Amino acid sequence: MEEVKLLGFYSSPFSVRVEIALKLKGIEYEFIEAQLPIKQCPNIVKYNPIYKKVPVFLHNGKPISESLVILEYIDENWKDGTSLLPKDPYQRAMARFWSKFMDEKCLPEILKLCYDSNYEVKVKAMGELHELLKLLENELIKDNNNIFFGGENKVGYMEIVSILITYWLGVMQEALEVDILNKKEFPNICEWADKLMSCSFLKENLPPREKLLAFYKKYAQPFVLQNNEVSQ
Amino acid sequence: MEEVKLLGFYSSPFSVRVEIALKLKGIEYEFIEAQLPIKQCPNIVKYNPIYKKVPVFLHNGKPISESLVILEYIDENWKDGTSLLPKDPYQRAMARFWSKFMDEKCLPEILKLCYDSNYEVKVKAMGELHELLKLLENELIKDNNNIFFGGENKVGYMEIVSILITYWLGVMQEALEVDILNKKEFPNICEWADKLMSCSFLKENLPPREKLLAFYKKYAQPFVLQNNEVSQ
Repeated sequence: MEEVKLLGFYSSPFSVRVEIALKLKGIEYEFIEAQLPIKQCPNIVKYNPIYKKVPVFLHNGKPISESLVILEYIDENWKDGTSLLPKDPYQRAMARFWSKFMDEKCLPEILKLCYDSNYEVKVKAMGELHELLKLLENELIKDNNNIFFGGENKVGYMEIVSILITYWLGVMQEALEVDILNKKEFPNICEWADKLMSCSFLKENLPPREKLLAFYKKYAQPFVLQNNEVSQ
Repeated sequence: MEEVKLLGFYSSPFSVRVEIALKLKGIEYEFIEAQLPIKQCPNIVKYNPIYKKVPVFLHNGKPISESLVILEYIDENWKDGTSLLPKDPYQRAMARFWSKFMDEKCLPEILKLCYDSNYEVKVKAMGELHELLKLLENELIKDNNNIFFGGENKVGYMEIVSILITYWLGVMQEALEVDILNKKEFPNICEWADKLMSCSFLKENLPPREKLLAFYKKYAQPFVLQNNEVSQ
């Protein structure tokens, strides 16, 4: 018998990525919610001592961390059924390149935007994120009345990874009352997000918007000018 | 006919990673040296507009950037012969996890150590790198008189990726006259590095030590206390 466990947290897009992948593959698993503060949660400290973060995937007791590494593992270990990554090696490379771009370039700016308390740092992060999203905007392919990323028009690796942008970012910007990702400046990303969010499989496996919004309203740092920064 | 080109630079460990992978697979390719400054090199700007860095891999005219993404592509597109990643899915996940660790955690500290001009930033980076290397030190497996990483004892993905630590870091610390990676504190990494560097295949495909040392002596920022930092 396979033992598949996921140590995750409901509001983490990285944890939800793994859940969606498991469901898409039809793999049964046990979800174990990490306790806050996550960096001190005994299971997290034990199984992910390097980063002390969710998600941690446990397969027959063996731990794997980092959501992109976990997605590749799931795709390679359960080869039957839907594959997450595209079949074509070049399309696979593009999916990996842009996923890396989201996690290494966009994510640090999203984290500053959300959790940094310094107004100027937040404003700068907003500008940086705007520039990064422009690069992604140009990568989306419009084909007749269809919009998709890369060579395959189905929910896979890149669509799972991109929930950080296509779902979470919208909730965060509502909680923070900022407007970065909008239909006027990013018509392709917004159309792509609408398309993904209208897919019932994805929708059913994402945390409810209101619950996520409540989380970010509680934990995100609002944009507040410090005393010595008050403009005239 | 396949057209395989690599836009690289002799002193870049990321560019050399791709060269070693191509040679290990027996793939013929044309090497095109990028011109300095790399961020303005027309070929780099054209084919890697997102990062403007080497290496750029061109397969039948289609570009791929980011060395880890390129290594996966080479492994998947030329399946015959030696495989770079281990066969076992869990060992593959571990190789990916630790490669990501080297590039996302160690590399930023190595870059500060090497190119930042601020003395305090450099000293801090040295301390951070020391802590990160300790984590890697504990991952190496000693089995009788053999030392290796992960489940396979051969030159593959992880060994190729780790040249950043097992070869470049030693050269950099000599150029900067600092001592971080040493046999006393990191016996496993140093033994692993010695073993890898005694492998004639690897040795033949690395840039000569003296040439690399001259590069870092020329371009690395030495540790110099600024006037207002001079200790008593």
